[in-house]
Amino acid sequence: MNADRVLEDLRELARLTGGPDGARRVCWTDEWTKAREFLRSRLDELPVEMTVDAAGNLWALMAGDGDGFVIVGSHTDSVPAGGWLDGALGIFTAVEALRSQTEKGTPPVGVRLVDWADEEGARFGRSLFGSSCCAGTLDPGEVRELRDRDGERLEDVVARYDVDLDRARDSGSELRGARAYLEIHIEQGPVLESRGEPAATVLGTCGVERHVAVFTGETAHAGATPMKLRRDSFMATAQAALAIRQVGMRHEGVCTVGAATSEPGVVTAVPGRTEMLLDQRHLDPDALAAMLSEARAGCEQAAADHGCDVELKHLWSIPPIPFDERLIGSARQAVQDAGGKDTAIPSGPLHDAAEMARLIPTVMIFSSSSPPVSHTKEEDTPEADLRVAIDAYGRTVEATLELAASGDLPPRE
Amino acid sequence: MNADRVLEDLRELARLTGGPDGARRVCWTDEWTKAREFLRSRLDELPVEMTVDAAGNLWALMAGDGDGFVIVGSHTDSVPAGGWLDGALGIFTAVEALRSQTEKGTPPVGVRLVDWADEEGARFGRSLFGSSCCAGTLDPGEVRELRDRDGERLEDVVARYDVDLDRARDSGSELRGARAYLEIHIEQGPVLESRGEPAATVLGTCGVERHVAVFTGETAHAGATPMKLRRDSFMATAQAALAIRQVGMRHEGVCTVGAATSEPGVVTAVPGRTEMLLDQRHLDPDALAAMLSEARAGCEQAAADHGCDVELKHLWSIPPIPFDERLIGSARQAVQDAGGKDTAIPSGPLHDAAEMARLIPTVMIFSSSSPPVSHTKEEDTPEADLRVAIDAYGRTVEATLELAASGDLPPRE
Repeated sequence: MNADRVLEDLRELARLTGGPDGARRVCWTDEWTKAREFLRSRLDELPVEMTVDAAGNLWALMAGDGDGFVIVGSHTDSVPAGGWLDGALGIFTAVEALRSQTEKGTPPVGVRLVDWADEEGARFGRSLFGSSCCAGTLDPGEVRELRDRDGERLEDVVARYDVDLDRARDSGSELRGARAYLEIHIEQGPVLESRGEPAATVLGTCGVERHVAVFTGETAHAGATPMKLRRDSFMATAQAALAIRQVGMRHEGVCTVGAATSEPGVVTAVPGRTEMLLDQRHLDPDALAAMLSEARAGCEQAAADHGCDVELKHLWSIPPIPFDERLIGSARQAVQDAGGKDTAIPSGPLHDAAEMARLIPTVMIFSSSSPPVSHTKEEDTPEADLRVAIDAYGRTVEATLELAASGDLPPRE
Repeated sequence: MNADRVLEDLRELARLTGGPDGARRVCWTDEWTKAREFLRSRLDELPVEMTVDAAGNLWALMAGDGDGFVIVGSHTDSVPAGGWLDGALGIFTAVEALRSQTEKGTPPVGVRLVDWADEEGARFGRSLFGSSCCAGTLDPGEVRELRDRDGERLEDVVARYDVDLDRARDSGSELRGARAYLEIHIEQGPVLESRGEPAATVLGTCGVERHVAVFTGETAHAGATPMKLRRDSFMATAQAALAIRQVGMRHEGVCTVGAATSEPGVVTAVPGRTEMLLDQRHLDPDALAAMLSEARAGCEQAAADHGCDVELKHLWSIPPIPFDERLIGSARQAVQDAGGKDTAIPSGPLHDAAEMARLIPTVMIFSSSSPPVSHTKEEDTPEADLRVAIDAYGRTVEATLELAASGDLPPRE
């Protein structure tokens, strides 16, 4: 693996589709098409067969000696004003893996690059579009009427890119022959930076429980209502939020209150109703269930303490999706051989890899993020850390091909 | 005092300018004009001289044997979808006071009714318009460019009601000869209801300190950022809010967090910035200052505990305005003679009486509120309580006229 070529490609992509305001490769737009044209120009230099599937995912297959293929991939799309590495690192490191295999001759089994369509969901609010079509978990009926800011329907917009929404799950046939899925991505968080480590193996994607807690008290005049006679929905929310923070710390998961919206929401009134947005994540399903149960208890206690009622409304959830034990083992060794430590962490953010892990053996490598931010133009990773992570990914591809050649990781039927 | 007549007038006003959606007497609208026409029709039956002053306040003077006059009044305007008693109780009880004096003959000094313009500030957000013009505390430059929801300027709208904003403070000349100001109003809070009392004397209006506390932490990915590495502006706000609640309870004042607005304000991000609306009120200036100081310390401690910064921005404040000791004494006796207890409480809400108390001896009587809500159509008071409060007000007017006749409460020059 030649990290210089990956960095060159990433910089060229940023030049073409980024700038001082950050990346602008929002899926289903001209800038995304431009990014894909650049990707195609790089793939054109390699002995691969390029196709676009029923969900708009771009595939590039390099044949191997044996049956089936190992998938290497990520996504070229970005959020508006996003970072230069999110998704793109995975795509151009996968391109380098193909280049590297080409230079070595013919791989023992095939290697197939995938560029998933619309990982970010930036335009319509539904992330993992392409990979969840491929995994068969996307219900067309649930997304058909999603609209962008201009009121355009998802179904109409994807049709312009030759995606028939009702046939998008046909992309699942692309997985016939797939032996494994490997993805490298930036961490998008501060764990590796805080430990001074360049890269890590990813154990799986955390399960997510997303709710809105609605606290109902009584709206009252801020001047006329003594403290002891209040039923203050914001104070109940504040107490619940602090309790939920303790829940997250106790279980070594994450619990986030993203916002709290009070009514009437003016400086002169005790708020009678407050809606609190709650997101909880954990890699362990039992711990996630316990966190939700304890958060609910914290909300109920806080409501009772402030004379309020509370109702938790379910917004969305996904179970934890653990990655493949053998591939995790290969990746841990690869990270160490590339100069990193034997660190393995869960991913709080979701990734296309989570959709693949439902069906085929999967693992991810994280590079550090520094500053440890995500979905902003400030997103970055020190070059030295990128080089370790790219090297570790290349070693993981090699190890996976060897496993496949030795009869492990059979091709999916 | 004949409470039946007051209740009849109030019901007729509600019929004319209220309904199932509540009162709609927003100042500077046709419905307000309609309410005033009804008031004029009642005043036309009495031996009074009606005038409208430079600020749009309606005055009705009944001459007395001696110089000067005692002012009785409140406001006919309401918030949109407001209650039937807020303001109107004070106006039609004042009308009844004039009726009652008329039936007795000529009062020892004059009695002058005032209907203040735009107490609520419902259209432009500036309350106490008429009374603060009269007291000289309204700066035309500060309100000239205020706009309503349709973008109309305050200055242009009041001009249609013959109010020249730059001359509005000329209404101060109306106070020449004023000896005292007496107002009856609903409590707008739960204190009297919770004690099972019909009415009370008001000691003065609380001072108010209004701030927005801006907590700044760091926006981060809700899934990727471990609890211990967060700088969560919402958690800092939650901790500060609970501390501020304790401050209010400790000082027996009121402290209210009306809303907290977080950025980016989505379920997938740790909020990097949260603005908290804070209102604090107390009748004692030293206690108010201590509450502000302790709230500031609570914000700073919370910010420090969560790795955030905090800044308190001043929005608005007014000092406590105590009412007149002699008139408080008269009112306390009057409430007891009318069948109430000797209860005297501060007013958290502001009133036109606060503007008057800056210049002339002033006192207020509260009736209970049950349900104890304000600025909604559900606002109400049991009829039996209204009768006690109306009687107490009449007795207070009598006592004040006697004080004036005996040489106390000299006419203002």
